[in-house]
Amino acid sequence: MSIPMSRATIVEQMQRMFNPRAVAVVGASATPGKLGYAVVANLKNGGFAGHVYPVNPGSAEILGYRCYKSLDEVPDDTDVAVVSIPAKGVASLVPSAGAKGIAALVVISSGFAETGEVEMQRELVALARQHNVRIVGPNIYGYYYTPQKLCATFCTPFTERGGVALTSQSGGVGMAILGYSRSRAMGVSAIVGLGNKSDVDEDDLLEYFGQDDNTDVIAMHMEDLKDGRAFFEAAQRVAKKKPIVVLKAGRTALGARAAASHTAALAGQDQVYQAAFTQAGVIRAGTLEELMDWARALQLLPDPAGENVVIITGAGGLGVLLSDACSDRGLRLMSIPPDLDKQFKECIPPFGASGNPIDITGGEPPETYRKAIMIGLQDPRVHALVLGYWHTILTPPMTFAKLAAETVQAARAQGIRKPVTVALAGDTEVEEAARYLEAAGIPAYAYAAEKAVAALAAKYQYWRHKTGAD
Amino acid sequence: MSIPMSRATIVEQMQRMFNPRAVAVVGASATPGKLGYAVVANLKNGGFAGHVYPVNPGSAEILGYRCYKSLDEVPDDTDVAVVSIPAKGVASLVPSAGAKGIAALVVISSGFAETGEVEMQRELVALARQHNVRIVGPNIYGYYYTPQKLCATFCTPFTERGGVALTSQSGGVGMAILGYSRSRAMGVSAIVGLGNKSDVDEDDLLEYFGQDDNTDVIAMHMEDLKDGRAFFEAAQRVAKKKPIVVLKAGRTALGARAAASHTAALAGQDQVYQAAFTQAGVIRAGTLEELMDWARALQLLPDPAGENVVIITGAGGLGVLLSDACSDRGLRLMSIPPDLDKQFKECIPPFGASGNPIDITGGEPPETYRKAIMIGLQDPRVHALVLGYWHTILTPPMTFAKLAAETVQAARAQGIRKPVTVALAGDTEVEEAARYLEAAGIPAYAYAAEKAVAALAAKYQYWRHKTGAD
Repeated sequence: MSIPMSRATIVEQMQRMFNPRAVAVVGASATPGKLGYAVVANLKNGGFAGHVYPVNPGSAEILGYRCYKSLDEVPDDTDVAVVSIPAKGVASLVPSAGAKGIAALVVISSGFAETGEVEMQRELVALARQHNVRIVGPNIYGYYYTPQKLCATFCTPFTERGGVALTSQSGGVGMAILGYSRSRAMGVSAIVGLGNKSDVDEDDLLEYFGQDDNTDVIAMHMEDLKDGRAFFEAAQRVAKKKPIVVLKAGRTALGARAAASHTAALAGQDQVYQAAFTQAGVIRAGTLEELMDWARALQLLPDPAGENVVIITGAGGLGVLLSDACSDRGLRLMSIPPDLDKQFKECIPPFGASGNPIDITGGEPPETYRKAIMIGLQDPRVHALVLGYWHTILTPPMTFAKLAAETVQAARAQGIRKPVTVALAGDTEVEEAARYLEAAGIPAYAYAAEKAVAALAAKYQYWRHKTGAD
Repeated sequence: MSIPMSRATIVEQMQRMFNPRAVAVVGASATPGKLGYAVVANLKNGGFAGHVYPVNPGSAEILGYRCYKSLDEVPDDTDVAVVSIPAKGVASLVPSAGAKGIAALVVISSGFAETGEVEMQRELVALARQHNVRIVGPNIYGYYYTPQKLCATFCTPFTERGGVALTSQSGGVGMAILGYSRSRAMGVSAIVGLGNKSDVDEDDLLEYFGQDDNTDVIAMHMEDLKDGRAFFEAAQRVAKKKPIVVLKAGRTALGARAAASHTAALAGQDQVYQAAFTQAGVIRAGTLEELMDWARALQLLPDPAGENVVIITGAGGLGVLLSDACSDRGLRLMSIPPDLDKQFKECIPPFGASGNPIDITGGEPPETYRKAIMIGLQDPRVHALVLGYWHTILTPPMTFAKLAAETVQAARAQGIRKPVTVALAGDTEVEEAARYLEAAGIPAYAYAAEKAVAALAAKYQYWRHKTGAD
């Protein structure tokens, strides 16, 4: 549908878009409450260190920035322009943008294909291509790139730096991603709205994030793919070095119908997507929460060195639920060799169970958890741990969280890095314990069992693809 | 495996167990940190209004309660005895309990079948049956019954009254239930540990909770059923008047193996359980979180009057995910009749979508949400609403939460009660909005889409069984 660009060209333009020397804001406003005000305010309040050039013929200055009458007048270091003027005026910006050498127009404005203005959108993109300008959107919330403290959006500033790059076709989903990331302290490199995806789409972003040292994990919400082949080519390459997790909305007949009316998306046959995702090594989330939970866990967890998973639990009941989840998610519970079994037996009470799960039972002091976890970490035949915690008076939640984090860190100091996830059953203090563990790099889930396994399984899916074991 | 008791006898003994005039605590201790201290402290601090009789030959008084030397000495109004002495001494209490007319021994002590002492457990139960005493456990955390402020457990007091009765075979799962209930303000009538289920099991509790006016919803975690026929007979009757939601652990081969080692449970063929659950109208949760989420929602949601579900959303992207979830969960999206379509069209912007989902778009003020929700509530052809909220400057989270709650309440004042659930996409303020909505009786989920549909689907499953539509 468009003239193919070389990967080098795509990356070079994305590079400028995510790391601009200066950002122009076309449709900037001095009136709080307007979109064009919010964009300028977020650039400023987010701490962007480059130049900001508001464009509005009626203002001299906005939020302390000198205002320009038109895009023609902005200085030549402008790499990207964020646009929030009415739809019908957007195309007229393209020649000026081309003349300035602007890499991309980020079009927040709605009123294009999603409202039936398919032709206006097509013309915008054709013109942009002529002038060597990329179009992001239209009909989006903008984008964030935390390494540059760049909040080019009408939403709220987001500055929690980290390795997860997130994209969404939907603004609502984008806001859920933003809120979740902030609430759960998920470190983010980028959040990008794609909306109508008239030009820049998932494959362009895969090219950029794939080579971006600030990005370790890529998570994408999509309702369709405009260019399936380009996506799968890019995904296949990138998925060998960074996990890609996707939430494909419009999976079902009802969902596909809703997608068609939302972003004019052709959601397509789901089995075709599924086969392609599997082949490309893309991890498919089933729900919005899974997309975000898994992205966060994929960032925190090191790669395993093999398939041997061991469950160590203070609650036998959690052990059962975690075992069911391992079976559901295709994880292998290690058959514990006799010598290792002996080691575990020595640290748990005689009525505990030393199979797998290792059930240390609920009446144990912190030392029992500590010893059992350390045995699992130190034995090279064990490749990953899932911990089940049971809140007791003897080992309260924060005591457990601290000992688990300390034990994992002590192993790291010995050069041992294994994926560890935690399910926490207990009174409300387990929420604080979960936050503590996550700050220590250990994905942890309060009042839940199966999530700890699902997150680990996402890591295994990535690792198997990367190592050719899938 | 045991002599069948009449339902009237079961209910009469359970009635006394949950509403005791006096509770004896055998193995009570004056030493903080001991289980037998924690039980007495929880009875006191929970606010139990009946008598508490600590039993310990070495103490004169514990926490202000007069202490008795043996169970023989406690007053005759003792309806239940909580036992935390070593396992081998438990059976010797039974004749005294029988002589006192005690209805049940709640045996916290472990060291029975779960550690191989199968015969000791069998003898305990046989003796108890002779003396007309029921055994709860052994190997449990105890139980709660909030209408009596009864916290007969070594865990923490729980006094948030409400209509959900929860049972768990596992102590760890029980603590997760406790923490979740407190954190999410789920009103609870009872929490009961079942452990080894040597005698009292799920069917006994179904008989009691089925006729208990303080209980509206029954949620059960189980690893096996000791008496499948009794369970399904009770479930079939009770599920016609109260929702029963079950998390059956040990579904898979790995899980079943873990269950056998945990509570000596014979987890059994899962397809047999599944068929029986379906026939009995039992709602089956797939995860621990679903068990609790659904129990909470089942308590809050009124019954629908038919199958017509309408999604009203400010975010088209949420609409797509909610539609997928309706398809997955077997809910029917209503085909909107032309006259109703006209009404919706009049309140949403021209580029919104008036199919189903109704997409009011993100740029709308609170009034648009309010009008669209009211149209859905007032039209008798619409039977349930799923709302998708998108955080915007025009309609911030708490503004939305308040208008949604007001609109539902205004409809109630007109005699209209329909199930409404909400998915909230936005920045961290949506967490407060979710709590507000739930306090107003509307299940709401922050940073999530599909959960709002899954909860509604649980209600539909109950309603279809009750009305014979399944």
